[in-house]
Amino acid sequence: MEDKTYFTPHEITPGLRRIKLVLEYDGTPYHGWQTQSNPKVPTIQSEIEKAFTALTQTPLKAMAAAGRTDKGVHARAMACHLDTFHPIAPQKIKTGLNRHLPNSIAVVAATEADQHFHARYSCRERQYQYAIINRQSRSPLLENRAAFCPYKLDVNAMKKAAKYLEGQHDFSAFRSSECQGKTPQTTLKKVEVHELDQDIIRVEIAGVTFLHNMVRILVGTLVDVGSGKKTPEDVQTILAQKDRCQAGKTMPAHGLYFTKACY
Amino acid sequence: MEDKTYFTPHEITPGLRRIKLVLEYDGTPYHGWQTQSNPKVPTIQSEIEKAFTALTQTPLKAMAAAGRTDKGVHARAMACHLDTFHPIAPQKIKTGLNRHLPNSIAVVAATEADQHFHARYSCRERQYQYAIINRQSRSPLLENRAAFCPYKLDVNAMKKAAKYLEGQHDFSAFRSSECQGKTPQTTLKKVEVHELDQDIIRVEIAGVTFLHNMVRILVGTLVDVGSGKKTPEDVQTILAQKDRCQAGKTMPAHGLYFTKACY
Repeated sequence: MEDKTYFTPHEITPGLRRIKLVLEYDGTPYHGWQTQSNPKVPTIQSEIEKAFTALTQTPLKAMAAAGRTDKGVHARAMACHLDTFHPIAPQKIKTGLNRHLPNSIAVVAATEADQHFHARYSCRERQYQYAIINRQSRSPLLENRAAFCPYKLDVNAMKKAAKYLEGQHDFSAFRSSECQGKTPQTTLKKVEVHELDQDIIRVEIAGVTFLHNMVRILVGTLVDVGSGKKTPEDVQTILAQKDRCQAGKTMPAHGLYFTKACY
Repeated sequence: MEDKTYFTPHEITPGLRRIKLVLEYDGTPYHGWQTQSNPKVPTIQSEIEKAFTALTQTPLKAMAAAGRTDKGVHARAMACHLDTFHPIAPQKIKTGLNRHLPNSIAVVAATEADQHFHARYSCRERQYQYAIINRQSRSPLLENRAAFCPYKLDVNAMKKAAKYLEGQHDFSAFRSSECQGKTPQTTLKKVEVHELDQDIIRVEIAGVTFLHNMVRILVGTLVDVGSGKKTPEDVQTILAQKDRCQAGKTMPAHGLYFTKACY
């Protein structure tokens, strides 16, 4: 999904400003980050573009994000940049965009960046969290905020399995068939499973680049370990066999949060 | 709002069962707990009644809750009881009601209680939490889940003020003009202010009985202390003067959670 080989050196355009934004959004009403060919399909990017045009009466010149989240996926702190010739101050971009954006998207920070900064290609680390509500009954307060798992998960087994996923591996078994990443090799810096209050299990994952649906398939596999369908050691075999069919199912989008981009 | 003097001894009806439920709900789509005279007005109680009838094909004989939450107020663990002649097992009430209830309400626990148990009158302690998102930008992920306060609050001053509210007081300054409680005297066992991650301030309040809008007015007064409009010591004066106009404004319903009923 994120592939450094796409990078082409950026030409400096005189007078063009690059603004870095940090966004929080509820992904529920959107078909993911990226603007679609059909302008009627609501996306995060298209809402930012519309709000910026409403604010400055000028269109954005370009825009890119650290991660292009899928339909229904949330962000606590998605980083992106936008390019504009307009002289508006960053603080006014923040307050102005927040006035024009729907309640489901907010700009948390806006700062001037130089043109060598690129929200996608300069990103050194991406962090995700996945939330599971693990009890017999649905959670109305976490509707569209956490995946529901009604059978008791063995968190210790999940923690053990998570350790096998850290480090550099061929993640072919953990990418969707639609993945366009050039290589299935990537490095996970952190895969941790935490048991929180109120029957919530949170999986925290950090890495440089991620394959398509990778976090959701990783968590689906950990859930199979937690439910006893797989052993922690099976995760090693799945990595080695590189077969998508051996890994767990793709967990629902609404449990997934993009939580941080490090530069 | 909760007044022990309303209590009338309960007559035991042969064959009538009393079931205790613990409910979680998102209060956003509801006009509060209590069934209204207009059956088209959606309330938590009316949804439970409808779901029970759909499940058992019999109407509920009676129902009562530990607290009658207002429009838009949430519950993590509201206790209530329902009376029925139907022989259905508690576990089946739980799973069956959850099948028939909308996603915004869930039964977390259902147990057989004896007829001397009363969800409202047997309750020894009620616990509430109030959530504030304290930063410059709105929080899309806490939309309808926390009150938004864009200016920086002094949490230490709020903690100090909170201490003056604990104990037995005349809370006349902290009740709405519509309050029907017979006495403004009540005891707060706990008023605590906590600073959590992600710019969230949580006020935790425990007491036996509460006056109408009491928690929301208490928190509004603490917010005035946090913003510097009032000093922590002003809270003592407000208690002594018993004048609603001296206390802070009533905070919005969507930051308030009923979190526990103790028996």
